[in-house]
Amino acid sequence: MSIESAIAALKPQFGARLSTGESVRDQYGRNEAWYPVTPPDAVVWPETTEEVATVARTCNEHGCPIIAWGAGTSLEGHIVPVQGGITLSFDRMNRVLEIHDEDMDAVVQPGVTRMQLNEELRATGLFFPIDPGADASIGGMAATRASGTCAVRYGTMRESVMALEVVMADGRIIRTGTRARKASNGYDLTKLFVGSEGTLGIITELTVRLHAQPEAISAAICAFEDIEGAVQAVQQTIQMSVPVARIELVDDVCIRAINAYSDYSMAEAPHLFIEFHGTEAGVAEQAEIVGEICVENGGSGFEWATRTEDRNRLWAARHNFYYAIKAMCPGRTGYNTDACVPISRLAECLMESRKDVPEDSFLATTIGHAGDGNFHLSYMVDPENAEEIALAKKLADRISERTLAMGGTVSGEHGIGIGKKKFMAQEHGQEGWELMGQIKRTFDPAGILNPGKLVPGN
Amino acid sequence: MSIESAIAALKPQFGARLSTGESVRDQYGRNEAWYPVTPPDAVVWPETTEEVATVARTCNEHGCPIIAWGAGTSLEGHIVPVQGGITLSFDRMNRVLEIHDEDMDAVVQPGVTRMQLNEELRATGLFFPIDPGADASIGGMAATRASGTCAVRYGTMRESVMALEVVMADGRIIRTGTRARKASNGYDLTKLFVGSEGTLGIITELTVRLHAQPEAISAAICAFEDIEGAVQAVQQTIQMSVPVARIELVDDVCIRAINAYSDYSMAEAPHLFIEFHGTEAGVAEQAEIVGEICVENGGSGFEWATRTEDRNRLWAARHNFYYAIKAMCPGRTGYNTDACVPISRLAECLMESRKDVPEDSFLATTIGHAGDGNFHLSYMVDPENAEEIALAKKLADRISERTLAMGGTVSGEHGIGIGKKKFMAQEHGQEGWELMGQIKRTFDPAGILNPGKLVPGN
Repeated sequence: MSIESAIAALKPQFGARLSTGESVRDQYGRNEAWYPVTPPDAVVWPETTEEVATVARTCNEHGCPIIAWGAGTSLEGHIVPVQGGITLSFDRMNRVLEIHDEDMDAVVQPGVTRMQLNEELRATGLFFPIDPGADASIGGMAATRASGTCAVRYGTMRESVMALEVVMADGRIIRTGTRARKASNGYDLTKLFVGSEGTLGIITELTVRLHAQPEAISAAICAFEDIEGAVQAVQQTIQMSVPVARIELVDDVCIRAINAYSDYSMAEAPHLFIEFHGTEAGVAEQAEIVGEICVENGGSGFEWATRTEDRNRLWAARHNFYYAIKAMCPGRTGYNTDACVPISRLAECLMESRKDVPEDSFLATTIGHAGDGNFHLSYMVDPENAEEIALAKKLADRISERTLAMGGTVSGEHGIGIGKKKFMAQEHGQEGWELMGQIKRTFDPAGILNPGKLVPGN
Repeated sequence: MSIESAIAALKPQFGARLSTGESVRDQYGRNEAWYPVTPPDAVVWPETTEEVATVARTCNEHGCPIIAWGAGTSLEGHIVPVQGGITLSFDRMNRVLEIHDEDMDAVVQPGVTRMQLNEELRATGLFFPIDPGADASIGGMAATRASGTCAVRYGTMRESVMALEVVMADGRIIRTGTRARKASNGYDLTKLFVGSEGTLGIITELTVRLHAQPEAISAAICAFEDIEGAVQAVQQTIQMSVPVARIELVDDVCIRAINAYSDYSMAEAPHLFIEFHGTEAGVAEQAEIVGEICVENGGSGFEWATRTEDRNRLWAARHNFYYAIKAMCPGRTGYNTDACVPISRLAECLMESRKDVPEDSFLATTIGHAGDGNFHLSYMVDPENAEEIALAKKLADRISERTLAMGGTVSGEHGIGIGKKKFMAQEHGQEGWELMGQIKRTFDPAGILNPGKLVPGN
């Protein structure tokens, strides 16, 4: 009854698809968060749902932790095997199983990445809009309820996942949801697994909603005198129901870095990066309305990109901002925050959080999925400097406290994992968090599914 | 330890706000479904969340069922006290507590009805779009995951409920969700309570998402040669991402009844009733695109209504279709079905279901929230004729079987209650349904919350 005995029991069935080799374990022990490399005791690569069920059943019998692993891009330590155990990699379960053009949905295995899915969709006129920065796996994105720049228009994984196949801790295989667009058919188990971070079950198949590629796309950037003006413009855009596809806040520090990194020469001021999807006329009208709103709020230099290459260049600048910042701060790494507040509090929350950063400390950058009230303040710390990391943590905690005081959430899209666990009782109330713990214990009495994350006392 | 002792324990605190009078009990014993009048043992009218918690705590101690009651308009027997107990009426918890214009959300008590909320929102430029036929309570709508004609554009209660206050079976008061537009903050308890039909907790406060009243609205109706053509037009509209606000299928039988009941003279053919929300130009463009799609699919007589009074008249005709049908079939009542399938299967599902109805039996009408793949076949039965009701039940069951075979759900928007319970194992698999039962027992070990509904073995 141990991790070792679970590995021994699984080895005969999985052979080379179960590894205890040091380099492999090290590779799966890394994480994109601030946790030291923590290798699992073994890595297993199942190829079918039944094999996942075998792993679960065996681990459940032996009391061995299972950490489901998609692309390893999560940001709050979700994949860190803090209690050891077996990392279950979905590298070999990465096929797009069905594409239903007419119904605009697709059935995929959890290891499919978002870019892979969009590649396979290219000929259909459909696309999958959820775009966290990394090329994350769809399974992992569901598990962390991921979103990205298009959430303001297309929603998050919460709205995108229609149905799931899930292996429970004891090896039971269940199916949740249907391919119908709505349902009043009992408890919404699909939504319960979405965002459960591998602690309630192991997602082995997903049906996701797709969208039609718009007839026309145009993008624009606009500089603002101050962040308040930019946020105000976003707020008015949302209130006027302009169906912007993206409306991203990029602060002056990021712009400076982007200018230095690529061959842009944008004004060193806060910017909005905006994208419009629709018909030719619709896109033009949206752009006109938003252009006016921007000017009214101190925006200037409204710049257009209707050609695909210009648009791609613009979004590449936005997406690569982190590399630009890294280039500007050699040897430093971003310590990321993820506040999300009601949009009326966004400017205030953001400005206060920026003011918190002592002038003589590290650089802090801000990008924001402003239409959702979500922003990421990122502290460029020296990873070797414990003092700086301690300060970053302290500042990040202050953002979380502030966010909660404003009626928001400590995590807009990165999840809870290990990093945000300490705020769960405060955000949900002790009673609410305990209720999550009760659900966890009901689904996984032995506590083998991604222990140490999200719920109380595990 | 009984229903009687629970009532006796509550009586001193609630006084006249707890009634065991026969006429009151009878009133709360009625339902809009096909279940005989089943009075509860008592009705209680709490005024605060704390009072609801007192009721729950007391009933939990005494093993007395609680049936939460909003407006009593549910269609699957959700409010029938099949095991007796206390009906908890939200008549006195019907205030709109907060309206946040800037964030476009509102905080309401569960007894607020959807029309009441829209009345209170009138001055704000915002509206609440979820519109089941009846003037249901927001609490009840959340509990049954209701939707309506606008779901194709604005989603259902699933997308509308942002946060809840819930009294648990043992009287604990918890809060779920936040006013932020998205979150990756642990298990989605909000979505778990939405659609739980009063079996997991008692909703005592809701934060709901609002939308901006569109600058322009126009509506249109269009006649089709056949239902297939109408459904095809809907499907193409959705695939082209035209953001229709409503796209409703109304069959020839309904049109005949509407013509007879009001002073319309529409062609006696299947129709689409469509509404567009947007800017002036946007609405005109949408209408043009959809108009073309309709003509390509055999639509004709495309008729416009941009003036508010014409539009209201048109939607009144759609909303009153049931009274029109009732007028056409004196003494008869509709036996409603609620299938929802992937849109590619909608025409087939609908046509086969219509063909099932023997020619020498009752009239059957079809209306459909076609953009969602959801339709209601309604059998106009004589409520005194057991044979007809038996036939209606048999036909309805066949629709459910067919829906499941096509990858859909047995309930698009009416819920499970008592009526659809027999299909739960088939829709979710025995394992999936049992998992719902496990959640139920975890939340409500004594089984006092709306027993006899939704979950297995209670």
